[in-house]
Amino acid sequence: MKIRVDDIKDIALGSAFLATGGGGDPMISQLATEQIMREHGEVELLPLSELKDSATVVAVGGSGAPSIMLEKMPNGMEGVWALEKLEAHLGRKADALIAFEVGGSNSLLPVMTAAIAGLPVVDGDGMGRALPEMQMVTFSIYGVSGTPMAVVDEFGDGALITARSSEKAEAMIRQLGLAMGGQCTSAEHVMDGATTRQVTVAGSISLALRIGQTLRQHRGELDQLIGQLQPELRQAGYGELRCLLQGKVTDIHRSMEGGFDLADVWIDSFDGQRQVKLAVRNEYLMVSEADKPLAMVPDLITLVDSDTAQPITAERLRYGQRVAILAIGAPELLRTERALQVVGPRQFGFDTDFIPLSELG
Amino acid sequence: MKIRVDDIKDIALGSAFLATGGGGDPMISQLATEQIMREHGEVELLPLSELKDSATVVAVGGSGAPSIMLEKMPNGMEGVWALEKLEAHLGRKADALIAFEVGGSNSLLPVMTAAIAGLPVVDGDGMGRALPEMQMVTFSIYGVSGTPMAVVDEFGDGALITARSSEKAEAMIRQLGLAMGGQCTSAEHVMDGATTRQVTVAGSISLALRIGQTLRQHRGELDQLIGQLQPELRQAGYGELRCLLQGKVTDIHRSMEGGFDLADVWIDSFDGQRQVKLAVRNEYLMVSEADKPLAMVPDLITLVDSDTAQPITAERLRYGQRVAILAIGAPELLRTERALQVVGPRQFGFDTDFIPLSELG
Repeated sequence: MKIRVDDIKDIALGSAFLATGGGGDPMISQLATEQIMREHGEVELLPLSELKDSATVVAVGGSGAPSIMLEKMPNGMEGVWALEKLEAHLGRKADALIAFEVGGSNSLLPVMTAAIAGLPVVDGDGMGRALPEMQMVTFSIYGVSGTPMAVVDEFGDGALITARSSEKAEAMIRQLGLAMGGQCTSAEHVMDGATTRQVTVAGSISLALRIGQTLRQHRGELDQLIGQLQPELRQAGYGELRCLLQGKVTDIHRSMEGGFDLADVWIDSFDGQRQVKLAVRNEYLMVSEADKPLAMVPDLITLVDSDTAQPITAERLRYGQRVAILAIGAPELLRTERALQVVGPRQFGFDTDFIPLSELG
Repeated sequence: MKIRVDDIKDIALGSAFLATGGGGDPMISQLATEQIMREHGEVELLPLSELKDSATVVAVGGSGAPSIMLEKMPNGMEGVWALEKLEAHLGRKADALIAFEVGGSNSLLPVMTAAIAGLPVVDGDGMGRALPEMQMVTFSIYGVSGTPMAVVDEFGDGALITARSSEKAEAMIRQLGLAMGGQCTSAEHVMDGATTRQVTVAGSISLALRIGQTLRQHRGELDQLIGQLQPELRQAGYGELRCLLQGKVTDIHRSMEGGFDLADVWIDSFDGQRQVKLAVRNEYLMVSEADKPLAMVPDLITLVDSDTAQPITAERLRYGQRVAILAIGAPELLRTERALQVVGPRQFGFDTDFIPLSELG
């Protein structure tokens, strides 16, 4: 299937929904991708089944504090520069690009890069959501090396990184990102097609497209939206979709530490009877009520505006905002024992083993 | 001339004297270099005059907070790994190595790397002292690009950095160094021999050797030492050597910020009549008395133990220590208008233009 210019707004919207508050602002990347595709043409979305075993697949995306993207916009060439730097090091060309996470921005960065480079984009990603650190992609979890990795900024300044582990590479790219103004773009996780099929959350880009269409069609209709999205998500391998609470943001404590957007957010139900706390590290990671968890990473926590039912990224969340807190069971690849050692709640400093949404509340 | 194993202790000592408190601990690098040279042989010290115009010269050295080196010791291969990474990118081999600064560690890193790689070391450096940031080397000041630059740590993890300016490259390497545990080794500032002759503080390695010999011979004899060093320094293009104060360290406020060792140090004269303040950013940058400067960067400020007359690096300076504060006029290449825009006191946050030692006190 071809990704058309008209699809971009829906992929951006649906990705922002799946991105659990992270993954970068959808609007800026949407406009940039639309413009690039008008110039360079449509992009092929390649199902995993059509990927050749020997194909060279490269993940492309942005890292850093999403809040910075609101002021420091990408120029659209970053992905191409990173890809070229990586290809020069490898001595061979990529055959297809892939998103390392689904995000308003990080779903589209491979698309805009592919449009310019004349490559297809794989229908899938390495998280099925967004998560803050590089070693948390399924590619890494299931054995693909994150490096060699090329990193660039909007000036084309950059680095070709090699490291023994994805954790180390993550530390390096995170620090380097600070020297690049808090945001950078990378090409990484080089793998062949056969491997890609094993380590990828399948179908997440086309799922984002369908979710985006549904969100647009049911703007302001939260109940219908949930009814429509439930079977879509199930079919794509996600668990139950549940609305945990509707209410108003009554407090936000924000900080930026080590290149991450951190926040604790308190949300009171409209009737004032309940108060939940939401923990943010680029993404929404844990919702709890009176210290009891209602949903936790790697299950998805997504905030939508309770009036428009449109997703809200963490960096745009503000005091007084009326929201619905939705939770979705994570895809299987994030719930294995191996995955939970990397993306389970303890890895984010929470003092609990993973309890799936289906066993909570 | 050949650098012999027996010379290493004197180069280390003399470099620590010229390094104005920075440049890394001399002892650790001395032992490592001696061991490597016993295994790999002597190293040729090449005068600038013998460097071929077309030779490829590469600067090698360590960056980061010197205090970290006391715990995280180099394994001796870092320089070789950085050099090989840079050579692979350039597609050609280096013909000679050069120190970017004179320092207990940074004078020796090119020597140990050259011993393993079988290359000569140029007799000169890019500072004639030590300074905390990459754009402050004379190579950069007089137009040589700092990048491409290869950076590695003691595990061989690394990055090949390209950037538009040395300031940006400095920011990138400084951040990357934090991900590498606060210390990293780089190969950088690729230049030809003809350029090297123009932008290098000449003769500083052999000067360090002679200073080291003098320091060893006049251990504990501060006055004789000053008498002996004065003509050596003059002949090498430095200004006057003056003892500003002898006294005791009465207060040290230390912090580590952005990968730098920072400190404010108060030193009281032995008779209790005078108190001076010493500002440190990896290196000793400014000595003042009642807010009036006595000496300032880029002129050299060096502390020696007032009893042994041996140099004291900033990270080893401690409360109660008895010291002599020496100041030396900087070499000409650091005192041009162009150089002062990069290494003058304002660049370090001091609210004064450069006043040379000869016009102070």
